[in-house]
Amino acid sequence: MSGFVSFVGSGPGDPELMTLKAVARLKAADAVLFDDLSAAAMLGHTAPGADLVAVGKRAGRPSPKQDHVSRLLVDYAETGARVVRLKSGDPGLFGRLEEEITACRAAGVGFEIIPGVSSASAAAAAAGIPLTRRLSARRVQFVTGHDIRGALPEGLRMAALADPDATTVVFMPKRTFAELARGLIEAGLPPDMPALLAENVSHPDQRLTRSTVVQLAASLEASASAAPALILYGPLAGEGA
Amino acid sequence: MSGFVSFVGSGPGDPELMTLKAVARLKAADAVLFDDLSAAAMLGHTAPGADLVAVGKRAGRPSPKQDHVSRLLVDYAETGARVVRLKSGDPGLFGRLEEEITACRAAGVGFEIIPGVSSASAAAAAAGIPLTRRLSARRVQFVTGHDIRGALPEGLRMAALADPDATTVVFMPKRTFAELARGLIEAGLPPDMPALLAENVSHPDQRLTRSTVVQLAASLEASASAAPALILYGPLAGEGA
Repeated sequence: MSGFVSFVGSGPGDPELMTLKAVARLKAADAVLFDDLSAAAMLGHTAPGADLVAVGKRAGRPSPKQDHVSRLLVDYAETGARVVRLKSGDPGLFGRLEEEITACRAAGVGFEIIPGVSSASAAAAAAGIPLTRRLSARRVQFVTGHDIRGALPEGLRMAALADPDATTVVFMPKRTFAELARGLIEAGLPPDMPALLAENVSHPDQRLTRSTVVQLAASLEASASAAPALILYGPLAGEGA
Repeated sequence: MSGFVSFVGSGPGDPELMTLKAVARLKAADAVLFDDLSAAAMLGHTAPGADLVAVGKRAGRPSPKQDHVSRLLVDYAETGARVVRLKSGDPGLFGRLEEEITACRAAGVGFEIIPGVSSASAAAAAAGIPLTRRLSARRVQFVTGHDIRGALPEGLRMAALADPDATTVVFMPKRTFAELARGLIEAGLPPDMPALLAENVSHPDQRLTRSTVVQLAASLEASASAAPALILYGPLAGEGA
């Protein structure tokens, strides 16, 4: 009897932005491993008796034992369970799927990935803007502001990120945006390029702040709340208000 | 009495990849404007008596009268109707929202954007790979292979698109990928960079073909089916098989 792991994108936070397939997988799950207490409304879709396991991974806290999560996934699957690994947003975007997929492969455990609505799409939608536009925003790109140590990742291509004809979304940007902005401006990004800070995207306490790259960098350097956030900059970021 | 327009992402094609919110908006709609006959399963969520209007926009066919679609949207809303404008994938990604949003604003019609699962996320999920990975794929970027005339868009930054440490997804790539690939290789992309052609993503006849940038360009130049497709290239594109 062999189990199965579904890596399920839960979307940006609003339980209504889950997909029908995500709900179906939760309903059928014997065990659900999830990161965040804000998953509560989503976990309401599970059957009575399903094991609900918080494996706690939150920005700003020490890194969890990723090995332990992977082992738990495989252990559950090897009992024959249908396991859901719930990941916020789209699991393929900065979801650190690789260790867990590698563990499934190594153990011969079958898996699937159910894509979800990314928080970048939800932030733009909430602001009333598209991520791309003919002529003015031909390219959209996503990076994370945070590597495994909490620092700005090494090896970012500043020329690509400073392109004034692209929309750029920075995931987990708050602690490193001032440093990133200095690099961007040095690489030619206009300091007054519009920038949008989107906090608690799609949650009831969502907050959108329109600014510029240089002003947002200064204000985040002075003080930043702990709320999860994205920064979207580029020619579209100032629109939609 | 004033109506309201919901721009709703229907996801990549699989009706189970719609969000709960998309289904709720379809259930409540007085009128639904949609692009593609493949929307049939999604339209099953509408109430009896809702107006279902095909406004037909398909790759490879002459461009529709965008003005006409925008006018129709506003006309419906001005009768007091709850109007859903269904867009495939995520409406913010190459969905050409701008003309329709501008028309709503000009007419004083209220609107919202409901984000959806992008076909890029669905293609990667189907292939069993993430779009990003620490160290090897720090950045992910989306471009379209197709401008309004059907040609490769002008002004693409080849240096950004040739970055070997990024995942790049090209929407509507088939007719221009050979030309794009020549530019990428000239800009330094290794010709044997893994590339994945994903056709009919998330539909029952989905087809994934793993190749390299140079081989895929040659095979598409020789012959390409009319199936809607994405191309994903970068270090992750060869994995997951």
